[in-house]
Amino acid sequence: MEKHILVTNDDGVTAPGLLALVAEMKKIGKVSVFVPDRNWSGGGHVKTLDRALRVKETRLADGTPAFASDGAPSDCVALATLGFLKEPIDLVVSGINNGANLGHDVTYSGTVTAAMEASIAGIPSVAVSLELLENHVSDMDYAPSARIARKVVERVLANGLAPEFLLNVNVPYLAHDQIKGFQMTRQGLRVYHSRLDERVDPRGRAYYWIGGDAPTGVAERGSDVGALADGYVSITPLQLDLTAYRALSEINTWNWQDD
Amino acid sequence: MEKHILVTNDDGVTAPGLLALVAEMKKIGKVSVFVPDRNWSGGGHVKTLDRALRVKETRLADGTPAFASDGAPSDCVALATLGFLKEPIDLVVSGINNGANLGHDVTYSGTVTAAMEASIAGIPSVAVSLELLENHVSDMDYAPSARIARKVVERVLANGLAPEFLLNVNVPYLAHDQIKGFQMTRQGLRVYHSRLDERVDPRGRAYYWIGGDAPTGVAERGSDVGALADGYVSITPLQLDLTAYRALSEINTWNWQDD
Repeated sequence: MEKHILVTNDDGVTAPGLLALVAEMKKIGKVSVFVPDRNWSGGGHVKTLDRALRVKETRLADGTPAFASDGAPSDCVALATLGFLKEPIDLVVSGINNGANLGHDVTYSGTVTAAMEASIAGIPSVAVSLELLENHVSDMDYAPSARIARKVVERVLANGLAPEFLLNVNVPYLAHDQIKGFQMTRQGLRVYHSRLDERVDPRGRAYYWIGGDAPTGVAERGSDVGALADGYVSITPLQLDLTAYRALSEINTWNWQDD
Repeated sequence: MEKHILVTNDDGVTAPGLLALVAEMKKIGKVSVFVPDRNWSGGGHVKTLDRALRVKETRLADGTPAFASDGAPSDCVALATLGFLKEPIDLVVSGINNGANLGHDVTYSGTVTAAMEASIAGIPSVAVSLELLENHVSDMDYAPSARIARKVVERVLANGLAPEFLLNVNVPYLAHDQIKGFQMTRQGLRVYHSRLDERVDPRGRAYYWIGGDAPTGVAERGSDVGALADGYVSITPLQLDLTAYRALSEINTWNWQDD
């Protein structure tokens, strides 16, 4: 039976990465599109409970029907899976994000947290992000990364993926024949270069940007950062059990009895 | 030397749980308060980069000076640690949240993601949440949980905590002498009962609430849910490496060569 694939993203309904991803997903199943109506980058794993959400029927640039909501990417997945879409969803794919999601990025990322929401709903999910070049162009070519996304989704559908896992896929910005292959990786180390940027508005009041340079990373072998730096597609299986098991016994030895 | 403790929360500057926590933290160190100016529950791990943030100098109900920002809890920690506070911060404590943060709650939770932000900044951190009773009262007593929070923070300061770990502390809603003790736990299983609640506005347009009953959990021994159900304080060490190491080898066996 044809698979039903939900496509979402965090760059919003007009993002070219979404368009490229949807085009590839249509080759392997029935596609529903449910995305935020605006950019939600860095928005984190949101569950909107304090306000109602609107859903608009719209179309992507190629005419594909899409639902756009004023919620976060994870809200879009929640709405879709809670019954807004009547047909059961076999897989959720989120992206293609404009910029890699590596290391500690994963809990901030709207792309990845949308996939987390699917995982919590018991649906296999894949987040796909494309590396940004330092001097990035506005008309990035998402076609090679969308083709990669299809290959990954095909393998998930063929092999099955326990819903407690999700795949975080990062694609180097290279032509298709320059990509060296796939590497299964661990989550690596991001290095953030955020800086507090204090300014004064025309009325003399201070305001603050979280500024600074874009994050870099430690390109260790076997990590997502390392794979990308070497020209490989990085595939990191993630889980939502964040327990630091190796810290448990240490903390257990602390004296918890005395006041 | 006196320790410098940053207190934040996700229920905002007027929350009674913040007041109780600050009062206890003052007993063990110098306290700075930097919190959101409104409730951010379920707001996720936010990094606000698309707008500037405002910071207001204010006071808590007991007169304690506090900074309140229009950013998320994690933004408050980012601003504070990036240089808004001039003195180095030894520990970040977030809470006391009005409601437990168990199982999959941790990536949604503003309380926990504020602690994650501290962890990423290399600062030991503790998130503290108080169980909500089913028929919860508006004037909850945060004093026992604040006393628990102080005990936990004292132990972290005494023993040290590698910054890649953070502690997620959940306190049962019991009188101090009814709390059975501390249990070091793993992240348990939340069971969400969300339901799509479609309504129609006075102008005939649909809108959607993420509704349904409050989440429950699987009260397994050794888990956060189980400890709380048994009347213990649950202490779960969390980490920000979400790699599903046990899935890595399985996924490696998939055929990644063929097109």
